[in-house]
Amino acid sequence: MHIEQASKQELKDLLADLYEEYDKLAELKLALDLTRGKPGAEQVALSDALDGILAGDFRAADGSDVRNYGGIDGLPEAKALFGSVLGTSPEETLVGGNSSLSLMYQVIDFAMNEGLRGEDSAWALNDTVKFLCPVPGYDRHFSICEYMHIEMLAVPMLDSGPDMDQAEAMVKADPDIKGIWCVPRFGNPTGSVYSDDTVERIARLPQIASDNFLVLWDNAYAVHSLYDDAPELASIAGYCRKHDTMDGVFQFGSTSKITFAGAGVAFIGSSERNLSTLKAHLAFQTIGPDKVNQLRHVRLLKDPETLAAHMAKHAALIRPRFEAVLEVLAKELGDTGMGEWTEPKGGYFISFDTRPGLAQEVVDLAGNIGVKLTPAGATFPYGRDEANRNIRLAPTFPSLEDVRASAKAFTVCVKLATVKQELAGRG
Amino acid sequence: MHIEQASKQELKDLLADLYEEYDKLAELKLALDLTRGKPGAEQVALSDALDGILAGDFRAADGSDVRNYGGIDGLPEAKALFGSVLGTSPEETLVGGNSSLSLMYQVIDFAMNEGLRGEDSAWALNDTVKFLCPVPGYDRHFSICEYMHIEMLAVPMLDSGPDMDQAEAMVKADPDIKGIWCVPRFGNPTGSVYSDDTVERIARLPQIASDNFLVLWDNAYAVHSLYDDAPELASIAGYCRKHDTMDGVFQFGSTSKITFAGAGVAFIGSSERNLSTLKAHLAFQTIGPDKVNQLRHVRLLKDPETLAAHMAKHAALIRPRFEAVLEVLAKELGDTGMGEWTEPKGGYFISFDTRPGLAQEVVDLAGNIGVKLTPAGATFPYGRDEANRNIRLAPTFPSLEDVRASAKAFTVCVKLATVKQELAGRG
Repeated sequence: MHIEQASKQELKDLLADLYEEYDKLAELKLALDLTRGKPGAEQVALSDALDGILAGDFRAADGSDVRNYGGIDGLPEAKALFGSVLGTSPEETLVGGNSSLSLMYQVIDFAMNEGLRGEDSAWALNDTVKFLCPVPGYDRHFSICEYMHIEMLAVPMLDSGPDMDQAEAMVKADPDIKGIWCVPRFGNPTGSVYSDDTVERIARLPQIASDNFLVLWDNAYAVHSLYDDAPELASIAGYCRKHDTMDGVFQFGSTSKITFAGAGVAFIGSSERNLSTLKAHLAFQTIGPDKVNQLRHVRLLKDPETLAAHMAKHAALIRPRFEAVLEVLAKELGDTGMGEWTEPKGGYFISFDTRPGLAQEVVDLAGNIGVKLTPAGATFPYGRDEANRNIRLAPTFPSLEDVRASAKAFTVCVKLATVKQELAGRG
Repeated sequence: MHIEQASKQELKDLLADLYEEYDKLAELKLALDLTRGKPGAEQVALSDALDGILAGDFRAADGSDVRNYGGIDGLPEAKALFGSVLGTSPEETLVGGNSSLSLMYQVIDFAMNEGLRGEDSAWALNDTVKFLCPVPGYDRHFSICEYMHIEMLAVPMLDSGPDMDQAEAMVKADPDIKGIWCVPRFGNPTGSVYSDDTVERIARLPQIASDNFLVLWDNAYAVHSLYDDAPELASIAGYCRKHDTMDGVFQFGSTSKITFAGAGVAFIGSSERNLSTLKAHLAFQTIGPDKVNQLRHVRLLKDPETLAAHMAKHAALIRPRFEAVLEVLAKELGDTGMGEWTEPKGGYFISFDTRPGLAQEVVDLAGNIGVKLTPAGATFPYGRDEANRNIRLAPTFPSLEDVRASAKAFTVCVKLATVKQELAGRG
């Protein structure tokens, strides 16, 4: 039954049923959690061989002893392997420590305060620095901007990626815009994959934007497809070469959702010129990354084929969790007009839109019966979802049974909030 | 023969012999290196068991799965173990990634730009920020200052540590002074250990200095003694508690010279208040440190007794190298008036002072016959050793044979430069 076609009496009856159902859920004293984009225990266990994999052989391919000091930008074989993920050559790749977020922070900190092209290029010389933020998006990106006093301008996400007509118009009109955040494949939270045309247009943004504009290309889910027929992402490095804009793009990736979430390896792809400038900056603050852990990762993941086989094991573990949520959503909310959601072919999230004005209430209702959801607004800059619609669902960490129970309880909360709203609207 | 007691003819004869000896060394085409304070291959091999030590058990003492996300300040058991090195409680300890230099940079960056006590406390609000730098000292400390535009004021090192009369007078007279660098035990490069009185006076510096003054206490060689009777270092945490100045001191340490130089664990000891503020800052730029590697370290090093036994193995490997250098120096340069040097009981360096004006020439002479020495001036802020005297010798990395050969060649260079200078002085 579509909510707009229901009679007032039908809605009242439904509301009574929903309250009853909600009260029963409350009695169960659930402790469920759909907030966290983190791998489950079985997933991290896929990489348990990392510990001990070196078997006493601590020599990198170039003969260097990875246990000792030396090398600010990572092992050659790690650059080759992770460059293959980003479509960059080893010379265009830097492999760092366990956190791509740190690498993003360091790049922005450097562009802001030191300047990638010398001190005259430092963004901080501008009174105002702005970033384009496709929404909904990743809250940690927005936090870095807030912390750095970078003003965030929302750009809507379409199925093909950010609305590029709008993005290009904004960038042309406003020289204070110095960057754009992108999660181009299986984006957080929508799961959408940028179209080839969008990737090419983003690769050209540095040409139409003001000087020292940077694309922050967080390809966190580059190899994280759930299905063999999941859409591929065009290579932004390829388009950058075509349009000579490699200096305007920093790609990021990590093994956080490939091996161990907290103990992986993060990497950057960019122009040789950018990396050389960045390395000089990093030399002031670190002796270099953990090369032992890099070597472990190379020994485990070996080459693109071995990496793909490893990722297929992850998919086998989390695909049923995604399908469980999507099944419940379709069964409970399909054709009801009570919400819309994405059906991602990879990544870690499902993005759910309530009818306008209800996200906060749904999150509260769920929280009150022990189902923790990502705070409403978290997927928007400044935590402000003006339409109060978007809720991010993260099904990977709980057990399949818990995922199913959470999704069911979630739909009860959605229905309850929506029916209340509809009844109130009819007066 | 003391150089000042030699006749001019004796000096001329000696010079001729030295040139001959120097030319013979040149013919050997040596490739020796005394520049690097890094452990040798046998030393890092002492910790090879790290890789594989977890044997499939990735649970921390609190039951958490170290493979997954979570925890910005390290594992509880790692805080306990490394807090014992710094004399801080687990609550006063933060355990991070592989680089204590990064932790130092982050603390200074935070104090400079954000302010440890809210934005009004940011050092950057001052036109000028200055640090006291005991000299000779560690070049990486000085690099951070230069990078952050912190003006460096030299304070002479005495056998007891920095000249505290001078340091206190400077701090009282100049409110722009916001910090002091200290390597309190087996300092780089002198090897000296601060006296108890010096430690207590440094713990009181925050009371007599201007607001938001910080002691940067880089206890890099806390457990790195070469002899059982090496001098102990008083606990600065103890004196801070006595004088209520824990907010004014950040202690740093790492396992870089305990386990793997590039793949260890770094840590901070400070007040709970400081750590709580710092953690909020770090949350913007990292998902947290590599807890798998922290757990490996706890399993290997276990407790202070096991750690001490491990360090005794390091001492057994590097003590002969130090003794070889000191033997050669004593034999070749003892009672000649051609130089003075430290005889450290721990750490990684021997500090050598030529007669004034000769350090650069000695380094050049050695370089020309294939003996690489740390650049003259490197141990001073801005690379400027006004007296042009100090040379840092690092004997741990080369083989014992190479260390001996390097030391011998070094003494030939010292003699050559000194005799030339003496002859020139006599006209």
